Amino acid sequence: MKNWHSKLFTPGPTEVRPEVLQAMSTPQIHHRSPEFSELYAELQPKLQKFLYTDQTVFVFTCSSTGVMEAAVQNTVRKKCLNLVNGAFGKRWHQITKACGLPCEALENPWDVAIKPEQVEQQLRSGEFDAVTLVFNETSTGMMNPLPEIAEVVKSFPDVLLLVDAVSAMGGVKIEFDRLGLDVLLAGVQKAVALPAGITICAVSDRALARAEEVKPKTYYFSFPVMLKYHKKNQTPSTPSIPHLFALNAQLDAMFEEGLERRFARHEEMASLVQAWAKKHFDIYPEEGYWSKTLTCVKNTRGINVAELNRTLVEEHGMRISNGYGDLKEKTFRIAHMGDLTTADIRGLLSTIDMILGL
Amino acid sequence: MKNWHSKLFTPGPTEVRPEVLQAMSTPQIHHRSPEFSELYAELQPKLQKFLYTDQTVFVFTCSSTGVMEAAVQNTVRKKCLNLVNGAFGKRWHQITKACGLPCEALENPWDVAIKPEQVEQQLRSGEFDAVTLVFNETSTGMMNPLPEIAEVVKSFPDVLLLVDAVSAMGGVKIEFDRLGLDVLLAGVQKAVALPAGITICAVSDRALARAEEVKPKTYYFSFPVMLKYHKKNQTPSTPSIPHLFALNAQLDAMFEEGLERRFARHEEMASLVQAWAKKHFDIYPEEGYWSKTLTCVKNTRGINVAELNRTLVEEHGMRISNGYGDLKEKTFRIAHMGDLTTADIRGLLSTIDMILGL
Repeated sequence: MKNWHSKLFTPGPTEVRPEVLQAMSTPQIHHRSPEFSELYAELQPKLQKFLYTDQTVFVFTCSSTGVMEAAVQNTVRKKCLNLVNGAFGKRWHQITKACGLPCEALENPWDVAIKPEQVEQQLRSGEFDAVTLVFNETSTGMMNPLPEIAEVVKSFPDVLLLVDAVSAMGGVKIEFDRLGLDVLLAGVQKAVALPAGITICAVSDRALARAEEVKPKTYYFSFPVMLKYHKKNQTPSTPSIPHLFALNAQLDAMFEEGLERRFARHEEMASLVQAWAKKHFDIYPEEGYWSKTLTCVKNTRGINVAELNRTLVEEHGMRISNGYGDLKEKTFRIAHMGDLTTADIRGLLSTIDMILGL
Repeated sequence: MKNWHSKLFTPGPTEVRPEVLQAMSTPQIHHRSPEFSELYAELQPKLQKFLYTDQTVFVFTCSSTGVMEAAVQNTVRKKCLNLVNGAFGKRWHQITKACGLPCEALENPWDVAIKPEQVEQQLRSGEFDAVTLVFNETSTGMMNPLPEIAEVVKSFPDVLLLVDAVSAMGGVKIEFDRLGLDVLLAGVQKAVALPAGITICAVSDRALARAEEVKPKTYYFSFPVMLKYHKKNQTPSTPSIPHLFALNAQLDAMFEEGLERRFARHEEMASLVQAWAKKHFDIYPEEGYWSKTLTCVKNTRGINVAELNRTLVEEHGMRISNGYGDLKEKTFRIAHMGDLTTADIRGLLSTIDMILGL
């Protein structure tokens, strides 16, 4: 079975449906043609509906990492508070530092959620005017309490909230306007279930205004430059047009499924995996903060994770992920996101049971 | 015929062959899997052969504009000389300024090539340690004398030469090592004939060393970060995997055609279009510097360019480009690059003859 495609139960890239892959192959159109502007104009209200916003949604041609950089470059004027309880929170701090922006990290152990009180205490200093939060830590399966943190940040009128929703967007409801978010970004290779290559980024009007003031030291990631072309239904440089075709098709498919039903499906898949994990192993992050899109299983049985994955790939055409970095053999990660079904999840769990003799 | 796909004779995006589009749809693999590293490792020697280099070739997930930013961010320590004789030369200067890097523009009228003597005179000041050059100006069909300029820059040992080869790479031979270039970048939607979304970027060892010293104020575009993962046959963040599959297929196709034959085909296509343009119109840039991949025709007959293109698109399923910016109606541009054939070019020119009654 060596050459079979491995079905991805990894927390991104996730499995992409053949119809969506096919949309990637649409013959190319010119990015300065009326056909392109039509496509762009068609995408905007769909993206707004998808993120529950009336404000602007950009699509950048790059990985999420690039738009993490865009977010801080365009908004940090005084100092940025980086909330860190996992690899991607840490990365955002590294990025902010690399960009030469004043910043400070609030670090929790990786299995402990960021608590709204911690954020409040930091912001009371008055030093900060931007906060970065990873909503759903792909490295640990931790879902930080976004609504509660957003509530706290809202009470500091000068502070903007920048949210990495990479492995949540498309699997969990995120109401951009109601929560009062300022930047919400996600690469599409997770719960949106497209191939990697573009990043969706909702931006509030006040973040756009802040960017005008800040004058970001970047051209490619500049919100004002993006906005100028956005108003003409264009992008400043040639975007990945195949991804835009695929995104358009996938948004239609998500509306056809129904966003609420899509989120409910993710809840159900999460329950299945988490019940299984509790029964046979344990779950890494503290209870109450388990992700709806991926589960980080604590390897309490001391199984050989690499070996389990090898058997899954080679004999069953399925792939899960080992733990991230230092957690490599201490945990393993099962994604339950995107276009996977509860039946897919049952199939995977039964197969693991069989392999491990559970 | 409204819904027919328009065959692109535009200077990017160019026409992409169906087989290459199909490669975009390969089922997704995980970017931290052995399969991915195999793909990455397979690409590197092919890219090196393609660019005549033994040094490092990165592939960034972004438009060329992003990698223009990467180039200056990683190499400018003292001051950058931006050579400007077209829209993209100008953009590189804007980008350098936006990044907050010390820089100066040497500007020529857009129909006048950058001359090696001009560069030499500037560099003699000793102020500069990096030079940006647009080899093939997509906005004007001007091919600046790269080998001669490279020769001059070489005589200033501390100065790095950064080359935008966006609409040339894949259509014209560029010997990275022999010319002693330091950064050579190109989006793939031009003469490489892939959909837009990734940018190829060869980097010299001394540019990599410079980047270590400079500490670029970016994470996404940092050469040292890219290099760290490159050594493991990986990328720092999830790349556009569909584009890498397509690039792999297209490099194979280019070697099958033969690089020399591919370049000769571009010469032949250029001769056809330029002979036609001289006969019926004129050519915009000064003689001796006409691009091999696109021709910017001077609209000496005062035809309605928008109307010609509309007729081409709507009645014949072909698209050319109007002039860039202010040159919109004063010129029009015909691309003869990528996987187009001399027969395609003859078909286009005869059709234009018929429409205009030439």
